[in-house]
Amino acid sequence: MGYQYWKYETLKRLCEDAFVRFGFKPDEAQIITDVLLESDLCGIESHGMQRLTRYHKNIMKGIIKLDAPFEVVFESPVSAVVDGHDGMGQLIAYRAMKMAIEKAKKTGMAIVTVRNSNHYGIAGYYANMAVKEGLIGLSCTSTNAIMVPTYGKSAMLGTNPIAFGVPAEPYSFSFDAATTVVTRGKLEIYNKTGHAMPDGWAVDATGRKCSDAGVVLSNIAAHEGGGILPLGGDSEVTGGHKGYGWGMVCEIFASVLSLGTTSNKSGRGGRGLINHCFAAIDPAAFGEAEAIKRHLSDYLEDIRKSPLADAAERIYTHGEKEAIARERVLSEGIPVNDNTMIEVLDMCKDLNMDFSEYFGHYLPPESDFKGNPI
Amino acid sequence: MGYQYWKYETLKRLCEDAFVRFGFKPDEAQIITDVLLESDLCGIESHGMQRLTRYHKNIMKGIIKLDAPFEVVFESPVSAVVDGHDGMGQLIAYRAMKMAIEKAKKTGMAIVTVRNSNHYGIAGYYANMAVKEGLIGLSCTSTNAIMVPTYGKSAMLGTNPIAFGVPAEPYSFSFDAATTVVTRGKLEIYNKTGHAMPDGWAVDATGRKCSDAGVVLSNIAAHEGGGILPLGGDSEVTGGHKGYGWGMVCEIFASVLSLGTTSNKSGRGGRGLINHCFAAIDPAAFGEAEAIKRHLSDYLEDIRKSPLADAAERIYTHGEKEAIARERVLSEGIPVNDNTMIEVLDMCKDLNMDFSEYFGHYLPPESDFKGNPI
Repeated sequence: MGYQYWKYETLKRLCEDAFVRFGFKPDEAQIITDVLLESDLCGIESHGMQRLTRYHKNIMKGIIKLDAPFEVVFESPVSAVVDGHDGMGQLIAYRAMKMAIEKAKKTGMAIVTVRNSNHYGIAGYYANMAVKEGLIGLSCTSTNAIMVPTYGKSAMLGTNPIAFGVPAEPYSFSFDAATTVVTRGKLEIYNKTGHAMPDGWAVDATGRKCSDAGVVLSNIAAHEGGGILPLGGDSEVTGGHKGYGWGMVCEIFASVLSLGTTSNKSGRGGRGLINHCFAAIDPAAFGEAEAIKRHLSDYLEDIRKSPLADAAERIYTHGEKEAIARERVLSEGIPVNDNTMIEVLDMCKDLNMDFSEYFGHYLPPESDFKGNPI
Repeated sequence: MGYQYWKYETLKRLCEDAFVRFGFKPDEAQIITDVLLESDLCGIESHGMQRLTRYHKNIMKGIIKLDAPFEVVFESPVSAVVDGHDGMGQLIAYRAMKMAIEKAKKTGMAIVTVRNSNHYGIAGYYANMAVKEGLIGLSCTSTNAIMVPTYGKSAMLGTNPIAFGVPAEPYSFSFDAATTVVTRGKLEIYNKTGHAMPDGWAVDATGRKCSDAGVVLSNIAAHEGGGILPLGGDSEVTGGHKGYGWGMVCEIFASVLSLGTTSNKSGRGGRGLINHCFAAIDPAAFGEAEAIKRHLSDYLEDIRKSPLADAAERIYTHGEKEAIARERVLSEGIPVNDNTMIEVLDMCKDLNMDFSEYFGHYLPPESDFKGNPI
């Protein structure tokens, strides 16, 4: 399984055209594409381009509705509850985060929780929307059930990523992490590339260790049991109950406050039933925003310069790897694996799009990859 | 090393009398005792009684100041910054959380951040203060540096616990966890009891694995390097960078927003330099608080009733073990280990308190335990 490198502009054009063919308006297609490719620009293959065809399938199945209303069902100066009515996750999330930002600029802080949405891409995208406005941003989302609680063997929580963005120099603090050991997207990549997963990531339907990503993904898609372990692993000795606790915090802010469907019951009956939460906090609510930014920047620099462990090459602060990846990817191109290109080729055929208009004479190799279970 | 079981009322009387002898007013002694023993009631020995003499030492050294002013240096309807002026952590924290609760009742949500405080006991105590008022509570604190960042070998963050409390039945969701694999208090207990620590908890001054809690605690106290690993362990494969990220989130809300001293520079120059953050959120800001509470209660029950992993006996939700421990401890007594009782005996001599007035004819066994490094 190889990788091809494509210019950002090429993939941007492909995605925007595809989303318009899916039925979105051009400005909507731009927002969705921006969220998707931001992931690839940050070096996070799992949540970028490789999911394009998955969105297509979910629209075809009617799980994602093109013309869903964005309904604010409850609102206060510091809060709102939104019903997304099964619309496209990225569009609902973008608008909800905008609401949180506008409210926080007036009041100092705000939380907007969302029910009945769909997958929204990387959580960090929305946290960074706040950072671009000089605010602290938070974002989290439920997903289909995939995390087994400590001592359980059925997935009862999602991967439930939580993201924080805080203004700093030379790059913001940008922390975006699934509350499971690894993301579902990472399992999808292991399945696409055919590698065995490390120990401590996932369990099969019986609750036993499993290194085959395809088996775990199939079990999850069929609700047959097993799943990914919480951050901290399978035991309290290594802190698995803590990852499970963080997953619950995400579930409470996204699914409980919105009165949405909790992850254990999402993704059924032809609906996504995914929930999100967005928060924005103005540092000026705590005094001088610039002094706070400097204080954080100095601390991040202290950490980066602190003594290295033996055999380690560099201490990163959160958001630094993404800043480095962006520079590399913008000059070298975005890496897309062959199996994703096969999916894109098939999608182009379905949509009467000319694959060669984007990728010239390139054709992906033959493969018996059947796609990731969704 | 054995344990003695003492009635809650006996230890309450001892602690309140001791804190008055330390120089606190009776109502202050009550608050501090309540925080301390709440930990023992929850079955968390590390943060309860066993720390009584540590507070005494820190008062004697002038690290904790008895008559410190509680200064609000910045305030808005949804926020405040407090300078604790090196006062007793529990008293500052109690008052700051009260502020957050009062503000949240008016506005829907509020955050109060605190600098220049001292250790405040269990984070969960303050989150639960909000829960008792029907609100969601959050609390976190910096500590002396003890967490090594991923790929580093010097402690640059504290254990940085974060606690969430959310109203639910039959008991609230109550999540309180260090962002390290384990707490410093756990290492203190391993040192007191002389047991070897499991792999993956801590590293020595050279950054190598270490199972001797005394060595790690001494290194940390002397700022000689090493420390406890972040939740997720020492590698990105197992998610160590995520625990490190959560530690940073705590540091940002407690130390950065307050313009306090970050953990890597705290506990020096005869000052604690510890910071906290408290938040309260009114569920009514998201609609009907009772419906939200029911929704969470149902979900927690679904998880508790979900299929068990092989060889597992029970799936707990967060706060359940503490509720069970409280019933047990109130009927069986609070277990206190012999080395803690030796410390208490010595403290009673120092303070001219009559040890037998609390513990009758009991005398702790001889021991060569020298106390935990602080």
